[in-house]
Amino acid sequence: MSLQNISQNKVFDGWHKQYQHDAKTVNCAMTFAIFLPPNASEKNKVPVLYWLSGLTCDHQNFMQKAGALKKAAELGIAIVTADTSPRGDDVPDDENNDYDFGLGAGFYVNATQAPWNKHYQMYDYITKELPVLIEKNFPVNNKKSIIGHSMGGHGALIVGLKNQGLYKSISAFCPICNPINSPWGEKAFAHYLGTDRSQWIDHDASELIHEGCSLPILIDQGKDDPFLDTQLKPGSLATAIDQQNVDLTLRMQAGYDHSYFFISSFINDHLDFHAKHLA
Amino acid sequence: MSLQNISQNKVFDGWHKQYQHDAKTVNCAMTFAIFLPPNASEKNKVPVLYWLSGLTCDHQNFMQKAGALKKAAELGIAIVTADTSPRGDDVPDDENNDYDFGLGAGFYVNATQAPWNKHYQMYDYITKELPVLIEKNFPVNNKKSIIGHSMGGHGALIVGLKNQGLYKSISAFCPICNPINSPWGEKAFAHYLGTDRSQWIDHDASELIHEGCSLPILIDQGKDDPFLDTQLKPGSLATAIDQQNVDLTLRMQAGYDHSYFFISSFINDHLDFHAKHLA
Repeated sequence: MSLQNISQNKVFDGWHKQYQHDAKTVNCAMTFAIFLPPNASEKNKVPVLYWLSGLTCDHQNFMQKAGALKKAAELGIAIVTADTSPRGDDVPDDENNDYDFGLGAGFYVNATQAPWNKHYQMYDYITKELPVLIEKNFPVNNKKSIIGHSMGGHGALIVGLKNQGLYKSISAFCPICNPINSPWGEKAFAHYLGTDRSQWIDHDASELIHEGCSLPILIDQGKDDPFLDTQLKPGSLATAIDQQNVDLTLRMQAGYDHSYFFISSFINDHLDFHAKHLA
Repeated sequence: MSLQNISQNKVFDGWHKQYQHDAKTVNCAMTFAIFLPPNASEKNKVPVLYWLSGLTCDHQNFMQKAGALKKAAELGIAIVTADTSPRGDDVPDDENNDYDFGLGAGFYVNATQAPWNKHYQMYDYITKELPVLIEKNFPVNNKKSIIGHSMGGHGALIVGLKNQGLYKSISAFCPICNPINSPWGEKAFAHYLGTDRSQWIDHDASELIHEGCSLPILIDQGKDDPFLDTQLKPGSLATAIDQQNVDLTLRMQAGYDHSYFFISSFINDHLDFHAKHLA
């Protein structure tokens, strides 16, 4: 199946569209959504912000709930939202169908362990296959930034930290900052990467950041997020905040939780931040 | 069950909260959501905009998808979103569980026919029970306006037209303007109100509007809405646009459809419109 349009909606004078395609990296059909601002055309290619979603989500949550498209239309930024895992009847899932591993929980890594390694190659899908597809088929240029929420915040951080030449800026809402020391991350990494914890370090933002980062990073974290202490641990990442080779802004937002109500309240700040670095 | 809070999320410095209560008019537990802007307090009671949703929706769709809360926070307007029908195991539904009648499809009328009349008293719930409950329990004043989408646009129009002293302004996105001449309306009214069509006229905006309206009305309709000609029929309502005693603005928006992407694109205009009349 080549790239197939499955829906389109006019929004803020631009377009929200959904597509399906056969993805080679993950060996299955994948669905994504793209927002094209009104000024995007073959003569005026626009930069792209890639959004990575959290556990249980797919490519639709952000487009429907974040309230981001007005600002993106004004700034002239395209947004691409990816799915959170491979999908399909032959893609293995958590044995108990739990929400925190398997379908909807790809954790943006390349699995090395069977049976997960056949499809769960989300890191390659996000960093290699999807951008090539987007830049070939849509009126966008090669300037891109990365952003995500929760598991997708972890994804945005490691994808950006490990590909500093590819992206212009990184941001996240309540990311899993130190997955090798969080129950969600430990469960997923043990399955996808095996039980040798030394293999996990290369997929943990709080480890990677100590090597430095040439890209600016913006993080918003709600102080009333129920997952703050047990799963997210922004303090682990904040140990790098004084490093000369790191430009990290971490905002703790009083009263806010883990939901899209939180994301919508601050998404415009993130879009302004990325627009500045994508200019 | 008295009024019971079931969730709360801080958003744009205000609060989104969900509540459940035993509703007398509809003889069942009902759930609603309220957005309280940051300036709302017992010393500064704010006006309320009531949102009525369309077929298949409940009280959550608007709060999650419309992108309305930033503007409502700035304007200092509370928003209340109601459910679209009575709910519960003993509430009768469409015999084929179709989406366009029964659960999720109360059409904002008081049913006169058995078995529907026991619970399907949505007109009384929206115009009488819910506003009294809201004004008793939240920091709001008695200024209110009404707005809705599709079936909820029909609801907003008939609720406003029939209660011109209660509300300050009326608006709608792609409302069912002439339900007595649309398949959705004819099916629902035949069940709820009986097969005598003379009993339907009092619940049809295109009929009611010819009696005049002292409230301003704003309607946005997408030109690419797939239900435009068969179900919505704004032309039936537009026949009143020249009446001296009607202040109707009907905007046909090129390229837009029936979705929340359409609603989000123009909701700020509607909030500004209502704020002006609620001031």
